[in-house]
Amino acid sequence: MYIAMNRFTINKGHEDAFETVWRKRDSKLEQVPGFRTFHLLKGAHDEENGTTLYASHTIWNSREDFVNWTKSENFREAHKNAGSNKGMYSGHPNFEGFEAVIGE
Amino acid sequence: MYIAMNRFTINKGHEDAFETVWRKRDSKLEQVPGFRTFHLLKGAHDEENGTTLYASHTIWNSREDFVNWTKSENFREAHKNAGSNKGMYSGHPNFEGFEAVIGE
Repeated sequence: MYIAMNRFTINKGHEDAFETVWRKRDSKLEQVPGFRTFHLLKGAHDEENGTTLYASHTIWNSREDFVNWTKSENFREAHKNAGSNKGMYSGHPNFEGFEAVIGE
Repeated sequence: MYIAMNRFTINKGHEDAFETVWRKRDSKLEQVPGFRTFHLLKGAHDEENGTTLYASHTIWNSREDFVNWTKSENFREAHKNAGSNKGMYSGHPNFEGFEAVIGE
């Protein structure tokens, strides 16, 4: 099992708009071999910086399945608008991938 | 759905020992109301600092279920040895909790 998380730091006041972008997206992940689940997660609010942490969280059968998706037309289609709505973001998204060492 | 992750930064050469601590633990999480899944995850290796990122990753029906567990005897029992094996760790564990805003 492999987990791919992309961390987004969202400026205060833009939280609802950020969530709406994700709600309205036309995901075709269900068609991708090895894909298991997607969640959009909301993490801690940082009072000092006026930002809220979000993370996209996908579970895959294996790292290979995830990497194959990142090389696919499906991935390019899913990310074609990734550069818009720049006012929402405090900095770039931060990717982290994790291999399960205990648990299936 | 709620995800509780605890991030551990492990000094080089201690990775196998750290994984063994988790493999050998006597988990009773399956008995806890609202608990769904546990995984131990291995993340990126940081060449510069000579450390590897790990994360314990538990999925719960709700944040409330997780918080109730942290107040239980089951939790105290699970963490009674948390202070040992200090040479493994580079710094303290770093907890992050996430609420799912999209996905069940």
